[in-house]
Amino acid sequence: MPRDGSATRERILNATESLVLDHGFAGTSLDMVLTETGITKGAFFYHFRGKGELARALVERYSEQDLANLEAYMARAERLSRDPLQQVLIFVGLYEEAAGALTEPYPGCLFASYCYESRQFDPATIGVINTTFDRWRERLGSKFEAVLAAYPPRLPVDAAGLADLLTTVFEGAFILSKTRGEPEVVAAHLRHYRNYLELLFGVVPAPEGT
Amino acid sequence: MPRDGSATRERILNATESLVLDHGFAGTSLDMVLTETGITKGAFFYHFRGKGELARALVERYSEQDLANLEAYMARAERLSRDPLQQVLIFVGLYEEAAGALTEPYPGCLFASYCYESRQFDPATIGVINTTFDRWRERLGSKFEAVLAAYPPRLPVDAAGLADLLTTVFEGAFILSKTRGEPEVVAAHLRHYRNYLELLFGVVPAPEGT
Repeated sequence: MPRDGSATRERILNATESLVLDHGFAGTSLDMVLTETGITKGAFFYHFRGKGELARALVERYSEQDLANLEAYMARAERLSRDPLQQVLIFVGLYEEAAGALTEPYPGCLFASYCYESRQFDPATIGVINTTFDRWRERLGSKFEAVLAAYPPRLPVDAAGLADLLTTVFEGAFILSKTRGEPEVVAAHLRHYRNYLELLFGVVPAPEGT
Repeated sequence: MPRDGSATRERILNATESLVLDHGFAGTSLDMVLTETGITKGAFFYHFRGKGELARALVERYSEQDLANLEAYMARAERLSRDPLQQVLIFVGLYEEAAGALTEPYPGCLFASYCYESRQFDPATIGVINTTFDRWRERLGSKFEAVLAAYPPRLPVDAAGLADLLTTVFEGAFILSKTRGEPEVVAAHLRHYRNYLELLFGVVPAPEGT
């Protein structure tokens, strides 16, 4: 563990993230963060000038983790198959595996939390969310371009739309999982997304008699 | 317009709903509601004992509107076809039409907003959200039971899961639409959900050569 204060910074970010997902950002006071972490106000202000800077640092860290997962899972999928359709199916399958290991309801997505109190944040903070969603659209979208070039879809679709749909499935399933207290929803809905791709690109054999 | 004060009550609820979707509930003060509606504190407290009662009334009204739409669209779909699969496709298509008429990004869903600051509310208020999601699962799920009895799906699925998936698509697409400022996302993602059902239940002709 580094002794340069970065451990304290991470501790503040971890505690704030959990608090924000249940209380909202406006509903999370500095006192709540101090109580949760057991640090002093002085130590807090050594790391962050205030709540605005904390909000920005929190979403930047969340975005970095999210994009690191995206790249790591895509790299694994690319190692596991040469075929772009198989790569997409494996990529989604890896997320499905990870979601399937959840034993508690998903705690929620910081992007969604910020989106529903967007007026609490400056445009640059909200911009981090858009940049992250754009990166997903580009990375997964370019993979779908390759899929569409190799496999004619059975219904008209576009690459960016298919990529965005995965973001929608994640965000929606998180809300259902969190509200219902059901851990299994996220993996189940990722499986539906994967089913859709398999049917759309004809991986599933046609039914008998057609 | 009734003169019994119910117009004022509706005005308070309308203003609060817009404020909450952008500022969060904790970030929406009584003063903001009074400024937005131009009513006095006395008039406010004539209608609501405080923010807690307002939160409950707001989500109850939202749930009633949501379930009224569900029933109205389902009734129209049932009049337009006798076939359960066509009924589901029409039902989703009606929502797709309504979403396609949006010219501004979707303002957001109050359920999602509450879900991301759940600790601001009492269990009964959060319970309204679960009851609403359950009602969707039952109403649309029983329709999918009839579909599954008549049409063998090309991949293993269950009725409740298919019904829940529509809730996920709505909630996720709202977040994407709101964050990106893109009105067209909701209709586009409902169309993907509809594509999935068509492919899953074999309405789309099999590709040539299979």
